Amino acid sequence: MSFKIREGLASDMPSVLKLVQELADFEKEPSAVIVTVADLEKDGFEKVPLFKTFVAELDNEIVGMALFYPRYSTWKGPTIHLEDLIVTKSKRGLNIGKALYTKVLEYGYNEGVKRIEWVVLDWNIPAIEFYKRSGAVILDDWNTVQINEHAIKNYLEN
Amino acid sequence: MSFKIREGLASDMPSVLKLVQELADFEKEPSAVIVTVADLEKDGFEKVPLFKTFVAELDNEIVGMALFYPRYSTWKGPTIHLEDLIVTKSKRGLNIGKALYTKVLEYGYNEGVKRIEWVVLDWNIPAIEFYKRSGAVILDDWNTVQINEHAIKNYLEN
Repeated sequence: MSFKIREGLASDMPSVLKLVQELADFEKEPSAVIVTVADLEKDGFEKVPLFKTFVAELDNEIVGMALFYPRYSTWKGPTIHLEDLIVTKSKRGLNIGKALYTKVLEYGYNEGVKRIEWVVLDWNIPAIEFYKRSGAVILDDWNTVQINEHAIKNYLEN
Repeated sequence: MSFKIREGLASDMPSVLKLVQELADFEKEPSAVIVTVADLEKDGFEKVPLFKTFVAELDNEIVGMALFYPRYSTWKGPTIHLEDLIVTKSKRGLNIGKALYTKVLEYGYNEGVKRIEWVVLDWNIPAIEFYKRSGAVILDDWNTVQINEHAIKNYLEN
């Protein structure tokens, strides 16, 4: 089976959202996705887009995607954050994930960024092993901190 | 002593870089900073800036700063990443850090973002306690993964 990797278009966003939901299910947070297709179509395709995607197409169907955007390191300079890299369950084992990963690395290389960064769940050992083999390092002494819109409001009101 | 929080200007970038270096020293990575003042002046003040800053001014001197930029959650939508929040050692204990933190939360609230996110070293307990008290949550099951420009080149060439 041969697949094709190409830049994602606004018309791909319904398929992208399906993959996002599939990942949320895998990560045991099925109801966490509140983003809509309309949000993705707007946020990714404005004059200053908030993200870019590559999609993997197989038999005219989107079976995988990588979503990423610029970040900035105060130590190194411009970087890229890879927010999601997803291949639908029935199409694993065809090297589609690796092809998407390579495409993002190529994109970052061509942009001249200093680093590409993402996060991985500490129990996702196959993913961690794949990343390590590719030359990435795992930083397990940094914790992610998040404050959501409700907690922000609460903090500011008190 | 009274201080003032205001948006950072290109002319503040030498002070901002000094604070970045001070943080790198604190985090035991003194030689990790390769960004220059010229980089910050360019990257933060282009037509599409890669980051924004707030600075804390005390007696006409910059004694603290917060540097942040937009990110995107495929589950929630637009978010902000707080890359650095630094108060120079001799000016701690004056609530300057808290004022910068509040300013970033206010900014995010006004922009309508779904979340503000950052990372903290797992041994920085006072910071972790402060963040928790403010309503943030610590996610310690996610690990950060990074591949730098040299490893990217090596991966693509092999």
